[in-house]
Amino acid sequence: MPVVDAAAFEARKRAFVERLEREALQGRVDEDILPLLRLLNTHPRIYTTSSCSGRIMVAEAVRPSFSKGRGFRPVAKWHHPVPPDLVREVVSNVEYAWLMVRGAILHVAAADAKTAYKLVEIGRETGHKHSGIIAMNRAGIFVEILGEERLDIPIKRGSPIADIDAAMDLANKTLILAKLRLYWLAARLEAELFGVEAPTSEEIRRAIRRVAQCLG
Amino acid sequence: MPVVDAAAFEARKRAFVERLEREALQGRVDEDILPLLRLLNTHPRIYTTSSCSGRIMVAEAVRPSFSKGRGFRPVAKWHHPVPPDLVREVVSNVEYAWLMVRGAILHVAAADAKTAYKLVEIGRETGHKHSGIIAMNRAGIFVEILGEERLDIPIKRGSPIADIDAAMDLANKTLILAKLRLYWLAARLEAELFGVEAPTSEEIRRAIRRVAQCLG
Repeated sequence: MPVVDAAAFEARKRAFVERLEREALQGRVDEDILPLLRLLNTHPRIYTTSSCSGRIMVAEAVRPSFSKGRGFRPVAKWHHPVPPDLVREVVSNVEYAWLMVRGAILHVAAADAKTAYKLVEIGRETGHKHSGIIAMNRAGIFVEILGEERLDIPIKRGSPIADIDAAMDLANKTLILAKLRLYWLAARLEAELFGVEAPTSEEIRRAIRRVAQCLG
Repeated sequence: MPVVDAAAFEARKRAFVERLEREALQGRVDEDILPLLRLLNTHPRIYTTSSCSGRIMVAEAVRPSFSKGRGFRPVAKWHHPVPPDLVREVVSNVEYAWLMVRGAILHVAAADAKTAYKLVEIGRETGHKHSGIIAMNRAGIFVEILGEERLDIPIKRGSPIADIDAAMDLANKTLILAKLRLYWLAARLEAELFGVEAPTSEEIRRAIRRVAQCLG
């Protein structure tokens, strides 16, 4: 088994933290997740590599998988809810269009197995069901934390095949719930890795269910 | 860190293998994946826990996440492509319906980190992008291998919001590609863990791309 090397870990961490701050200055980092990434990077046994707070995307593709890089073309991306008219406009020039929502995804490197495993546990506890250790090498043990919110709506195949107002209503609500799940994750990470006082998972889960009911 | 205990591993393996064979006799195991599970269980450092070869599902739910167990009700499941009329019939009695496709998911326990990591690598190499080590305890290091084929299409919210013919065309094709990805995984597992001669990943990837093109 490859074992994490302290010098390799530190060197890679420095490079990733510098990249994050450079991209933040350029306004290229998703603001809904930047504070959490910065906090995680203050932990001596952790650094973040690439992450997204959740997004709505319109893509041109016959189908989303087995075509990435071959006829899969992202047309527009937003990290926040968007009005249906904007999506209608974006879709008007595309022949095959998918409306996709993806929940948060975080990639975090840990210096040791115990820390990596803790990250996986917190991910799974907060409903990021497909979290796991995905790779390990001298520079770290790499954890993916992946939210379960997801939506794939084929909205155009030559002619329109979905009601864009109804689709966007769902897409926007799905994204809002994905963001709430991310804040749940952030609260538990703050509590368990940094000793910050935070609501319990049960309290947060109840609060999110109330929002979900209000959204209808 | 918890360490795998040989006796606990063997005891748990025996229980899972017995359960698999009992359920197979009852016709309750997905036949597209049973031969692979049986093969994996012949490996001394491995046992399988729960797996699915990929499926199409209609579920009644306002939305699939934040409602599991609360208003999330599977209405029908198939491990093979299905005609749109069957889905239309199933959906006709439901107010809020989602059409969901899931690629293969395998849960495999390994007796040591090296074997677990090998499983993750083969999963990722065959495009099961969200594969990782998700838990570890005395009975094993648990790996989830998860395909990237997935569709979550809202098809009815009171009134229909998606064209069922178009949605089913996509769902069926997505399931077919997910099954091919599973066979790719099976071939590489056979080659790398059992020394069986198998096509290379590049050959398989090309073959799958040809099928994807034929599907249109």
